[in-house]
Amino acid sequence: MEKRSLSGKALGVIIFLIVVLVGSIATVIYIFDSNNQKLKTEQVGQIAADEVDPAVWGQYYPVHYQTYLQNGENTDMPSHFETKPYMKLLYAGLGYSNEFNEPRGHVYTLEDIRAVDSSRYKVGASCNTCKSTQIPGLIEKYGADYYTSSFEEINSQLEYPIGCLDCHNPETMELRISRPALIEAFERQGKDITQATRQEMRSLVCAQCHVTYYFEPDTKKVMFPWDKGVKADQILDYYDEKKFSEWKHPDADTGLVKARHAEYEVFQGSTHESAGLACADCHMPYMKMGNTKVSSHYWTSPLKNIEESCGVCHREGAEWLESRVDDIQAKTKEIQDIAGETMVQAVEEIALARQTPGVNADLLAQAQQMHRDGQWYLDYVMVTNGYGFHNPMESMNNLGKAIDFAHQAIQLAKDAAIKSQ
Amino acid sequence: MEKRSLSGKALGVIIFLIVVLVGSIATVIYIFDSNNQKLKTEQVGQIAADEVDPAVWGQYYPVHYQTYLQNGENTDMPSHFETKPYMKLLYAGLGYSNEFNEPRGHVYTLEDIRAVDSSRYKVGASCNTCKSTQIPGLIEKYGADYYTSSFEEINSQLEYPIGCLDCHNPETMELRISRPALIEAFERQGKDITQATRQEMRSLVCAQCHVTYYFEPDTKKVMFPWDKGVKADQILDYYDEKKFSEWKHPDADTGLVKARHAEYEVFQGSTHESAGLACADCHMPYMKMGNTKVSSHYWTSPLKNIEESCGVCHREGAEWLESRVDDIQAKTKEIQDIAGETMVQAVEEIALARQTPGVNADLLAQAQQMHRDGQWYLDYVMVTNGYGFHNPMESMNNLGKAIDFAHQAIQLAKDAAIKSQ
Repeated sequence: MEKRSLSGKALGVIIFLIVVLVGSIATVIYIFDSNNQKLKTEQVGQIAADEVDPAVWGQYYPVHYQTYLQNGENTDMPSHFETKPYMKLLYAGLGYSNEFNEPRGHVYTLEDIRAVDSSRYKVGASCNTCKSTQIPGLIEKYGADYYTSSFEEINSQLEYPIGCLDCHNPETMELRISRPALIEAFERQGKDITQATRQEMRSLVCAQCHVTYYFEPDTKKVMFPWDKGVKADQILDYYDEKKFSEWKHPDADTGLVKARHAEYEVFQGSTHESAGLACADCHMPYMKMGNTKVSSHYWTSPLKNIEESCGVCHREGAEWLESRVDDIQAKTKEIQDIAGETMVQAVEEIALARQTPGVNADLLAQAQQMHRDGQWYLDYVMVTNGYGFHNPMESMNNLGKAIDFAHQAIQLAKDAAIKSQ
Repeated sequence: MEKRSLSGKALGVIIFLIVVLVGSIATVIYIFDSNNQKLKTEQVGQIAADEVDPAVWGQYYPVHYQTYLQNGENTDMPSHFETKPYMKLLYAGLGYSNEFNEPRGHVYTLEDIRAVDSSRYKVGASCNTCKSTQIPGLIEKYGADYYTSSFEEINSQLEYPIGCLDCHNPETMELRISRPALIEAFERQGKDITQATRQEMRSLVCAQCHVTYYFEPDTKKVMFPWDKGVKADQILDYYDEKKFSEWKHPDADTGLVKARHAEYEVFQGSTHESAGLACADCHMPYMKMGNTKVSSHYWTSPLKNIEESCGVCHREGAEWLESRVDDIQAKTKEIQDIAGETMVQAVEEIALARQTPGVNADLLAQAQQMHRDGQWYLDYVMVTNGYGFHNPMESMNNLGKAIDFAHQAIQLAKDAAIKSQ
């Protein structure tokens, strides 16, 4: 590494040139003014258009890469069942019922999907879609066959987890969308994602994966169910219209739809989103790293860097801010638990009714419909990270409906058994 | 009225003396600097310690009085039943079921209580307690007999509605507590209300009336049920421990407790309250009135003066702020309606069960307990002004519980009927 100081060259400004020789690939020159504010970054050489290895990008952007590596810090993956035991019964018949852990950092995507119970990826190759920088290349290579391949066929080719290429153009460093499902979902809504503003892109790159999705039954393609809108009721309408169920609950025989981490959808219309914030404003705050400030690529709870994330707008101090988050999350968790436990009762009552000779089929079908609706509203909150924080009022509204549907399912199932012939 | 200009008397400052002769009572001198900023107000003479007439105070404080008179602007009092039809059945057996209107301004307190269905004040004199500036004097005069008097005996002596004397010391203009129930509630919690800070007092003067209360059965005294805390579950615990019911629902035969406009209690622990705000910060914003700024005494929705109330802290503009309030209130109303309609079903199922020969008494009693609990949680949100806005998460949390309790009551009532002997 060679370092030279060229002071006094421009009036009032001291320019430092730090010339970094990165193997044989490139030279990066950082130019700072006298206050150590970075004026610009010159690059000599180029990251390849298909560079899937985050470490190579890290040679050009060592400070960003340093924050990316922090994603390895959190090694805990407690089971969701420890705090939400009702999940296990509600997901019966799905791989989620066998193993479902809290998420850890993006650098573990490959390691974790290989370690999880294999029932979790029995759909096939599509389950790899958000696990590696290599996926866009493989989709291009295989075409429609990518989705119908076996899980192992694709997974065995993967070497790198989620990384730089997933969100950045290696030439310009601009944000870009690499996953087809998001682009197509926008097209079906009559929207052109290439017209998104930079601030919108600071959420949309996350929305490639942090959304709810389903696998189109014939093609196994990853699809976002957004044609009628991104809210719980609109997505349920979409599934109902398609008469789509992802699986049948083995006890209740209800055709159910499964929500996934719908952070992007839930965030829409929230206080923070409507105030103009993007995912990155809270989850990728600007951090002082040595002489420079970078947008952190350690994707985690904003509470871990509360001064840099929340503190930019909210000046009340970390302790107060944490207490507000705690209040929102505790109140959400309490109602979610009521909804979850009631939904378990609904499954049990429907199962009992099904075993009743001559059960009233019409009432039983109504009970199953209520189970389907209620479990969807519950799941939409339950699997979305943040315990309601991404949109507290919407989450509580959905949970209130979930409790109501669950109880209606219970009553209808009981009636179906009583009114048997 | 005499007005003199004494310019050039002090260096760099122009002083205007406005001498106002108010009948024979007093002279008020306003002193302004060259920017028309009021420097101080001198008073000659004194408002009497027992001055119950707001108009007399208005002669000393004409600008404040002008805002007080604005409380007469809102003349609408639509029935709550128009938007919440379930209220009528839930309150059956209480005067509220006969007539229950949206509130209007404080200047109408006497006019409105005299016009309302007389079943609303059948408890007696205590119902006058928050209707007139003359009440503290009458409590002093009558002692414990005030509360056991007839409604008419006290009401016929009242001439002035809620006004200045209710919250201000006429000598110092300091805030003060004039209603015994609040002072005593603090004492029972081991707290000395005389030690409250000025900012606390800017909520506590409101908390003399904008709270839930009950009438102590023997003495008819106005009591605040806060001994265990001011939250819905704590107050319900308090009532349960005392085995207190305000009335029995005629259809369900459930012993119920009635919530009242619990704005102060609900506000505690909210985001705004925990950030240090008092009732007056939003409901009595500083308004520019001619040459001076005064804390508005027009007690109404902050949305009517959104720039002066919300806009002091939130810089996003009136339209955005209104949309956020709308979002909170619409999501609350939707879940409140589910809870209200479900509670009506609970009453109907319990009524049916009661008519079933040989009904299972134990299950029926459990159903009634769930009805009592659920209706309390619902009522605590439903009658608190602001559709959840004073504490959105707490309100939604209470409504989620209300839905759950209502459905449990329905199921238990059905079971009680089925398991009849």
